[in-house]
Amino acid sequence: MGSRLLFRQARIGGPRNGRSWLSSFHHLSSRSLHSLPFATVNAEEISGSRPAEVENFVQGNWTKSKNSNEILDPLNGEPFIKVAEVDETEIQPFVESLSKCPKHGLHNPFKAPERYLLYGDISAKAAHMLAQPKVSDFFTRLIQRVAPKSYQQAFGEVYVTQKFLENFSGDQVRFLARSFGVPGNHLGQQSHGFRWPYGPVAIITPFNFPLEIPVLQLMGALYMGNKPVVKVDSKVSIVMEQMMRLLHHCGLPVEDVDFINSDGKTMNRLLLEANPRMTLFTGSSRVAEKLATDLKGQIKLEDAGFDWKVLGPDVQEVDYVAWVCDQDAYACSGQKCSAQSILFMHENWSKSSLISKMRNLAERRKLEDLTIGPVLTFTTGQMLDHMSSLLCIPGSKLLFGGEPLENHSIPHIYGALKPTAVYVPIDEILKEENFELVTREIFGPFQIVTEYKDDQLPKILDALERMHAHLTAAVVSNDPLFLQEVIGKTVNGTTYAGLRARTTGAPQNHW
Amino acid sequence: MGSRLLFRQARIGGPRNGRSWLSSFHHLSSRSLHSLPFATVNAEEISGSRPAEVENFVQGNWTKSKNSNEILDPLNGEPFIKVAEVDETEIQPFVESLSKCPKHGLHNPFKAPERYLLYGDISAKAAHMLAQPKVSDFFTRLIQRVAPKSYQQAFGEVYVTQKFLENFSGDQVRFLARSFGVPGNHLGQQSHGFRWPYGPVAIITPFNFPLEIPVLQLMGALYMGNKPVVKVDSKVSIVMEQMMRLLHHCGLPVEDVDFINSDGKTMNRLLLEANPRMTLFTGSSRVAEKLATDLKGQIKLEDAGFDWKVLGPDVQEVDYVAWVCDQDAYACSGQKCSAQSILFMHENWSKSSLISKMRNLAERRKLEDLTIGPVLTFTTGQMLDHMSSLLCIPGSKLLFGGEPLENHSIPHIYGALKPTAVYVPIDEILKEENFELVTREIFGPFQIVTEYKDDQLPKILDALERMHAHLTAAVVSNDPLFLQEVIGKTVNGTTYAGLRARTTGAPQNHW
Amino acid sequence: MGSRLLFRQARIGGPRNGRSWLSSFHHLSSRSLHSLPFATVNAEEISGSRPAEVENFVQGNWTKSKNSNEILDPLNGEPFIKVAEVDETEIQPFVESLSKCPKHGLHNPFKAPERYLLYGDISAKAAHMLAQPKVSDFFTRLIQRVAPKSYQQAFGEVYVTQKFLENFSGDQVRFLARSFGVPGNHLGQQSHGFRWPYGPVAIITPFNFPLEIPVLQLMGALYMGNKPVVKVDSKVSIVMEQMMRLLHHCGLPVEDVDFINSDGKTMNRLLLEANPRMTLFTGSSRVAEKLATDLKGQIKLEDAGFDWKVLGPDVQEVDYVAWVCDQDAYACSGQKCSAQSILFMHENWSKSSLISKMRNLAERRKLEDLTIGPVLTFTTGQMLDHMSSLLCIPGSKLLFGGEPLENHSIPHIYGALKPTAVYVPIDEILKEENFELVTREIFGPFQIVTEYKDDQLPKILDALERMHAHLTAAVVSNDPLFLQEVIGKTVNGTTYAGLRARTTGAPQNHW
Amino acid sequence: MGSRLLFRQARIGGPRNGRSWLSSFHHLSSRSLHSLPFATVNAEEISGSRPAEVENFVQGNWTKSKNSNEILDPLNGEPFIKVAEVDETEIQPFVESLSKCPKHGLHNPFKAPERYLLYGDISAKAAHMLAQPKVSDFFTRLIQRVAPKSYQQAFGEVYVTQKFLENFSGDQVRFLARSFGVPGNHLGQQSHGFRWPYGPVAIITPFNFPLEIPVLQLMGALYMGNKPVVKVDSKVSIVMEQMMRLLHHCGLPVEDVDFINSDGKTMNRLLLEANPRMTLFTGSSRVAEKLATDLKGQIKLEDAGFDWKVLGPDVQEVDYVAWVCDQDAYACSGQKCSAQSILFMHENWSKSSLISKMRNLAERRKLEDLTIGPVLTFTTGQMLDHMSSLLCIPGSKLLFGGEPLENHSIPHIYGALKPTAVYVPIDEILKEENFELVTREIFGPFQIVTEYKDDQLPKILDALERMHAHLTAAVVSNDPLFLQEVIGKTVNGTTYAGLRARTTGAPQNHW
Repeated sequence: MGSRLLFRQARIGGPRNGRSWLSSFHHLSSRSLHSLPFATVNAEEISGSRPAEVENFVQGNWTKSKNSNEILDPLNGEPFIKVAEVDETEIQPFVESLSKCPKHGLHNPFKAPERYLLYGDISAKAAHMLAQPKVSDFFTRLIQRVAPKSYQQAFGEVYVTQKFLENFSGDQVRFLARSFGVPGNHLGQQSHGFRWPYGPVAIITPFNFPLEIPVLQLMGALYMGNKPVVKVDSKVSIVMEQMMRLLHHCGLPVEDVDFINSDGKTMNRLLLEANPRMTLFTGSSRVAEKLATDLKGQIKLEDAGFDWKVLGPDVQEVDYVAWVCDQDAYACSGQKCSAQSILFMHENWSKSSLISKMRNLAERRKLEDLTIGPVLTFTTGQMLDHMSSLLCIPGSKLLFGGEPLENHSIPHIYGALKPTAVYVPIDEILKEENFELVTREIFGPFQIVTEYKDDQLPKILDALERMHAHLTAAVVSNDPLFLQEVIGKTVNGTTYAGLRARTTGAPQNHW
Repeated sequence: MGSRLLFRQARIGGPRNGRSWLSSFHHLSSRSLHSLPFATVNAEEISGSRPAEVENFVQGNWTKSKNSNEILDPLNGEPFIKVAEVDETEIQPFVESLSKCPKHGLHNPFKAPERYLLYGDISAKAAHMLAQPKVSDFFTRLIQRVAPKSYQQAFGEVYVTQKFLENFSGDQVRFLARSFGVPGNHLGQQSHGFRWPYGPVAIITPFNFPLEIPVLQLMGALYMGNKPVVKVDSKVSIVMEQMMRLLHHCGLPVEDVDFINSDGKTMNRLLLEANPRMTLFTGSSRVAEKLATDLKGQIKLEDAGFDWKVLGPDVQEVDYVAWVCDQDAYACSGQKCSAQSILFMHENWSKSSLISKMRNLAERRKLEDLTIGPVLTFTTGQMLDHMSSLLCIPGSKLLFGGEPLENHSIPHIYGALKPTAVYVPIDEILKEENFELVTREIFGPFQIVTEYKDDQLPKILDALERMHAHLTAAVVSNDPLFLQEVIGKTVNGTTYAGLRARTTGAPQNHW
Repeated sequence: MGSRLLFRQARIGGPRNGRSWLSSFHHLSSRSLHSLPFATVNAEEISGSRPAEVENFVQGNWTKSKNSNEILDPLNGEPFIKVAEVDETEIQPFVESLSKCPKHGLHNPFKAPERYLLYGDISAKAAHMLAQPKVSDFFTRLIQRVAPKSYQQAFGEVYVTQKFLENFSGDQVRFLARSFGVPGNHLGQQSHGFRWPYGPVAIITPFNFPLEIPVLQLMGALYMGNKPVVKVDSKVSIVMEQMMRLLHHCGLPVEDVDFINSDGKTMNRLLLEANPRMTLFTGSSRVAEKLATDLKGQIKLEDAGFDWKVLGPDVQEVDYVAWVCDQDAYACSGQKCSAQSILFMHENWSKSSLISKMRNLAERRKLEDLTIGPVLTFTTGQMLDHMSSLLCIPGSKLLFGGEPLENHSIPHIYGALKPTAVYVPIDEILKEENFELVTREIFGPFQIVTEYKDDQLPKILDALERMHAHLTAAVVSNDPLFLQEVIGKTVNGTTYAGLRARTTGAPQNHW
Repeated sequence: MGSRLLFRQARIGGPRNGRSWLSSFHHLSSRSLHSLPFATVNAEEISGSRPAEVENFVQGNWTKSKNSNEILDPLNGEPFIKVAEVDETEIQPFVESLSKCPKHGLHNPFKAPERYLLYGDISAKAAHMLAQPKVSDFFTRLIQRVAPKSYQQAFGEVYVTQKFLENFSGDQVRFLARSFGVPGNHLGQQSHGFRWPYGPVAIITPFNFPLEIPVLQLMGALYMGNKPVVKVDSKVSIVMEQMMRLLHHCGLPVEDVDFINSDGKTMNRLLLEANPRMTLFTGSSRVAEKLATDLKGQIKLEDAGFDWKVLGPDVQEVDYVAWVCDQDAYACSGQKCSAQSILFMHENWSKSSLISKMRNLAERRKLEDLTIGPVLTFTTGQMLDHMSSLLCIPGSKLLFGGEPLENHSIPHIYGALKPTAVYVPIDEILKEENFELVTREIFGPFQIVTEYKDDQLPKILDALERMHAHLTAAVVSNDPLFLQEVIGKTVNGTTYAGLRARTTGAPQNHW
């Protein structure tokens, strides 16, 4: 299928320039923010006293449910969002809705091809909406409320989503459905290859990119003619709920997508009963393995990753490299799938001011502007325990961080840690008894740093070979022979190479 | 080069639906039409008493010239537009401007790659502007003023242009610059292929599609890093002049394109002095041949065509086929490059009501709504003389039309003819003495019709083989063996096949 | 990964013409057949009294094992091949060999690129060897001995394999490793996409195509830099064992592939210990599901299929269609993954002589030339029982066949049935209680036939929607509207359309 | 059209290893060389006393002509080949033959698709023939007799030709004819793009690559369904004449290609009368310009080039770089289109031993093994005169060479010069009065060398911008910023980059 157009993470970028081109021409009314024609909430005003509500969408209608799940404000612990969660007795409408879609999909090159154009149109309109300052600000702030990260980082999600939608404007959806043919053996014979949808599918997405991950996966699935049911982690599903309303406003047919809030057990039941032909799951590997078994392989998994960066022998542009390391490791409080988890630096870099510059940058991060913030899947205690275990390894030391955040009201179910780096000697990392501990992924502002000499490069390559999750990686060097050696002997989803390489930053242009 | 993204003609289509999505959200100010932030004219108000002026653009500035060319209103003969035409003494700024652009272009994959994104942005903005009802109406009406055709046909140009721009939104310009690589023979070797611009280029376009042809060619050239000078037929250059202003408004850097009005001699001189590395010429073959010689082959030519349609033995959907024939032959008063010039119909169709239905449709065309209008390159007399010559061929007859339009004030330099069809027997067409006469292209509302029996199909194929210009063609049949026979034994730029095939209608999705 | 270049079945074709071009130039020596420089057996002479032996290949050497498995001659029941089967105590060398290959493979675009050329060379040489009449005859006869099918069908495997190898001659392997790049956001940035191998992989293939399936999968894996261990069903593994020797003769490095004979339990153990990064399994879905669970999804499965054909309302070329139906259903005794399992014919076809022609063709099949032969996975009794169950459905009837073969010495562990067709009314097929029975795949010379009227087409589409395995399908019609309706509303791996459509016949050109 | 698959020059390479794989299997008969089943000459034995004869091929037959052209042995001046040259009175059969081919070609995706497979087969067979040591030796020696170059260089042509043919074995010709489709706007609409032939075409090739250029161009044209007439420079046409015989032997249909020997005037006449739809001309720009005018643009030209190499600031692997410079400038006595004509070296390189190593390598070249040999388009005097003019430029000096070859019997119509390098200061090169002189291409063993400092790089880029012919170029450096700067600011057909970059060496894998 061509329906999986997945892009995993936000693009860091300054606020977009040149938006003023519109100002002479369009103007939004001066009504208050929730006068956005699609929105049902006001991102700024959601609070314990004025909680927002999140509904489900099925068979063309927004619906409530018997029970609701109260989400705590990650910055002060107040219950501020009520999510209508469907339980096992309420899944029947979702099962029926999904079952209505045949295996050959809502459209394919031989059925309803005008829908390729319809989706080009929806994409252009939705992209244009997201380009409006008030709309992008609305989503940026809404993201910040539920998945605390800096304005710039949250805006990055909105920007990538907008660019993705622009990419599928006009005829571009139809071009996705491009087929090919080759002449056959005899007159009148030709073989043709077409892209076909799966039909009914399910999309399950995590908390860390509440807008970008579900929108990109959803639109990719829709473009090719699939009918998806979408479930986003309830902690953040308000963002996608509002985006669904924007998409309907831009012409998305209401029968094309269902949107469900539920716990994992209910979702599992739904998958077994409705039997979608493909499930696209992004999230923890524990859940992923269970789903893989239940669904007999009809699933695509988006891994997390223990992502590495290698700094080569050529030291240049230390300021820039320190800045990228800081961003890669600590932006979004380290909660990107592609966050830098381990840094291998050539000894030439240890002699430079790199580490001290990284420390300075880390110390500038603060809760006020959310350049550091709550960790949603690890508590403070869990992270400190992990650090302690690492510091028991001979030769290990704390480079910076290592303490809880101060003066905050982040609830205890979440983590609150200063950006942290722990040094572990390369020879210790490679020891059988340490390897698994050191390469355990902590989805928070936490990284391992180590150092190697020229003749230890094979050890680094050995370590990289032994790791399990291969999502992104970066080789920072301008030396073509070094690059070739490291790239040729490693394996990753995405490898960034060059002096300006980074682990995060896969933009919407990545395919 | 990848810079030639050419699409030749307008897409017929109903007014676009669903524009109301914007209405709840945006609203253009209520000021009068020429309050469009970029426009300097009001399409409705241009007249002999309030003539419009067209300027040149060079080295970042709009400029006037010593002389100007007065354009007559094609509907009433009043001089209504003054075009500032550059003469040979004034070309120096244009020569210098073009010469400033190096052969490696304004950008390429190794130079200023951020400009790929800039052009994605310009395209998205310009597409959105054209999607505004007031803007699309402005250009539709302006086109009608200078190249009279129905509102629907003129709107078609605007719509195709808008869709083309949507197609290159976001990252799509950068994707055009996609390169590829293959491993070399030895470690460290890889071969890469990149798309490179020509650098300085010239684009020369004709009267019949005043917006679509120059915009598509211009943007295609810009995307790949070329610096174009654009010259549009002065009779219609006001449309592109206004579009240049829209593009500047959407962020087009003023140094990137020059826009010139001049006669052919001056343009020739400019080409010889500035020596662009490629000239893209659309227009008459007489001029094309001269240019080809002068420019020593550094030119790409877009042909006109004597376009044919073959109706196969299976007669179905006569109403629909008659409607398509009428559109193909007479929309835009037959002044599309892809207009149907000759119709070969199987005798089964002659027994049907096809011809009488075509006559009825032709007779409904009227000057009031410009479904028929002035012919800009042939006078009425020239067309009637051609008809008389054809009617001298034994067995020929006038099927319908054949008379001047009535009650009009179209100036004598232009043609004014009712939609006309002349029947010539196939055996006569094939005769050496008649062939050239019959297959002479008349850029007006004029077509040849002939008939064949099953066993005469080889004669048809022979006739098609002997024609010179092969632009578009259509084979109307659902019989796979017939389609295979005709397609496999003919040659054309574009062949449309199937019962709903047409010669016109190449949309922006065509590549 | 690009390493999966899978083609599932043999191409029917007459003996290749024009081989005489070599005769004036080359000549094989006149020594007897087993003088082929690579072969260790003589296909004709293998027998109970002169049994052949099949070895394993690991870490560069041919090896024997403690135990061996005696394979019975499918035509007379004599034990005629001894296969050295590895048991669980002997897998260590295979585990070590596979583990030696790193995840980044034996080559990739940054490592040992000269190996792309080496494989182009090996492919050209092996293709040329297979083109030699004596070599192709050797493999054709060897296939016939273990997987009885007609000379033409067995030769088809050799021919497809040869053409596949020709397709990857010269630089074509290196072209497979073609990468692409797009310009980045800033000067000096470019994103590149490369094809990377999995590294260690396993390939497990079934009995029905002893040469084609393993060679195409093996070479595809090798081209991209993987190191495979190959296991072929022991009943037929002698063919691939001899092919391994031919490949070594043509330059295949001995470290690049291991070849193992074992039972499923041992293979499962090997997979768990050696942990290949991908397993490509072709065979029964029961085994496939177990593997999918054990290997946590790191597996690609090649389905069997219950393949359908729909005959449209337009009846033409009855002789040709009958011939194709006979081939699709009964060639290789119905033991192709793509064999026609059910035929939906429009009532217009029932009125024609189609069924009687199919009966005549079926009755011409005979054991002497193996146009019908032993069924390796169903006994005669099992197939007759299935037929009896079907005939209990009201309105069902036997069209032809339905009896055991006569005068044969096929051992009882295999099946021996005349080509059989059973008619079941469409309304009965659709009943809940019958559907699963009717659509059960019988991997033998057995098909269901049914009939429909114009207004029953939606029922047919409903039946096709409810089937599970979607491998190949054919829509036999020249009516474009009918084709569009059926293709647009069904889903299949491969759909063949047109009056000459067939379910079998996917050639090497298929991608 | 996809028919132009052109690769311009030979690949330097050692004799191919591993040919012994065939030895156990095939053996050529022990008859003498001209027993090659297709050959009519013996490459070694051609001489003044036993002259060879070259015929024409038209309408399926080898033919003689009234007149013949006597070719002088370039090493001793004896007339040793008689070429049957067609004059203007004899061209009628060629005109008729070409005219028989319709514009839609001998095959296309809708006509005779089985011919795609036929050409896959011919290619595989011809590739295999050329891989035979006796055949490759035959062509290598034959090339050496008429276009004197070293055995290795001549063998390179044969090798590239063989690999090219391997690349189009099996189904690869049919894959060239791959089409694509996109869904249309409405049900039942799809647009398809196909590759179509031109039909009748002409191919005209020069003396320097007597086998590779005509075979690659001819086969590329044939693959797509064109019917070519081929004319090779009479001085070397014996090579292609023998290759035609080999191709016929491998199954090339005799009607598919005509082969003509004539002078330019006759060929021009033939082109005007037969009016091929495309002419592919490789050779001197003087002839090219005339043809472009005569043929009104229906021509594709393969340029010669004044090819440059820039050595960056990073000095490494001096031996290797010197060796590549020697090969690029002097292999084939400098008579490759891609031969290095000018070398820009950073001053760091001047301080190295580069020039002295280049001198040593140049001095090792000798007539005996044809590492230096006759120049076919410049006389010794012309080259010495050019050198003298250059040495008049202030600051110029002779680096090495600059003298006629000694002790030879090369006839006076040809040139005989030692490998020569002349140094000219960069500031002098850039002067208006010198630029044209310095950048004049000498198709012989002659190069310009100059030097630049860091701050003079813009001057180099300026010089590269001002040159006219842009065929190949090389940037020798491992510094990514330097590479980016030079590549981003220059333009060439092919640019080779990296420390091991070269101007020559475009292999068959180049597209």
